[in-house]
Amino acid sequence: MTTQQRRPSSSRRSEASRQAILTAAFELVGEVGYAKLSIEGIAARAGVGKQTIYRWWPSKGAVLFDAFLALSAGPDEQQGLPDTGDLEADLKLVLRSTVVELNDPRYDEPMRALTTEILHDPALAASYTERLDAPMKELKKQRLRSAQQAGQLRTDLDLDLAVDLLWGPLLNRWLLRSGPLTEQYADTLVETTLAGLRPQRRDVEA
Amino acid sequence: MTTQQRRPSSSRRSEASRQAILTAAFELVGEVGYAKLSIEGIAARAGVGKQTIYRWWPSKGAVLFDAFLALSAGPDEQQGLPDTGDLEADLKLVLRSTVVELNDPRYDEPMRALTTEILHDPALAASYTERLDAPMKELKKQRLRSAQQAGQLRTDLDLDLAVDLLWGPLLNRWLLRSGPLTEQYADTLVETTLAGLRPQRRDVEA
Repeated sequence: MTTQQRRPSSSRRSEASRQAILTAAFELVGEVGYAKLSIEGIAARAGVGKQTIYRWWPSKGAVLFDAFLALSAGPDEQQGLPDTGDLEADLKLVLRSTVVELNDPRYDEPMRALTTEILHDPALAASYTERLDAPMKELKKQRLRSAQQAGQLRTDLDLDLAVDLLWGPLLNRWLLRSGPLTEQYADTLVETTLAGLRPQRRDVEA
Repeated sequence: MTTQQRRPSSSRRSEASRQAILTAAFELVGEVGYAKLSIEGIAARAGVGKQTIYRWWPSKGAVLFDAFLALSAGPDEQQGLPDTGDLEADLKLVLRSTVVELNDPRYDEPMRALTTEILHDPALAASYTERLDAPMKELKKQRLRSAQQAGQLRTDLDLDLAVDLLWGPLLNRWLLRSGPLTEQYADTLVETTLAGLRPQRRDVEA
């Protein structure tokens, strides 16, 4: 075998190991919590050596972050929000599914672990904002922009703020466990927020 | 001296120690971060023995939580929100001062530390909700209720949700550092949210 022939197979093996490590990190943090998550544990679960992980990631936080990036690169996350023309119905659908996800024990601990890292690490927070949050926010803003063009939202609306208003309260309720996180709450949130984002009478008459 | 005579002085000493410990915990977590905060460090700063702290609190998280409770029992925090009759102006004043507080390095690290504890400890989250969050939320709802009675807010408005909409986005932006946390942001947040909470035309005509 020449070096050239070996490369694809070696790169396939690398990719398989990488995927196994990310899956192992995500599953393990859900089982043992972030404090007890270790590179050793991830390596054992993934069936790779510790050095394989350290070759690609400097810390368990970095592995976990990439595990989230891999999740958010899935086909569902790339395709944008539903756009049936009915903004309220579309947003309720999306926010209800966010509620279901936040209440899912498989995601709860990994997301709390990632949030803790972000809370205390400004560099990771910047990376999170740029690589995970911003692309998702852009998809949300696309949907709002389409509603704006259809005359369903105020033209002077700050779309970043609109996203904060629609998704922020869900995130807070989940993080601080400050109240029941239900699909009913998602519905009321969408209805109440949209009431403030729609064109006001003076816009319509202008 | 009889036992009876000694008691008041001993209780004053206890109260002075308690205050010194809470102040020390709050200052120290701001300087060294939560991970490096220790009961030993708090004791040394407060000028008390470690055992004095362990007599009253089971953990550093419990000390820090009481330090926050003591802060929120201050006269400013008990008196309710301003009520000049102009809801928008009153809310802008309050949210701008929240922005200033969240941007203050003296509060930043202690509040991140407390949030981390809450994130991972459902019992502490419940205690936080009951003892710290709920009383503050009630003051906010009182101000909104007064505006409701003055016909400035919809009568069917869910006041818990209204509080989430007004304060949640500030908290998220601070926690995740997802965007600049400015007084301008607070103003736009109040204006946009209130637009959805005011009586709609159909309410007025009904």
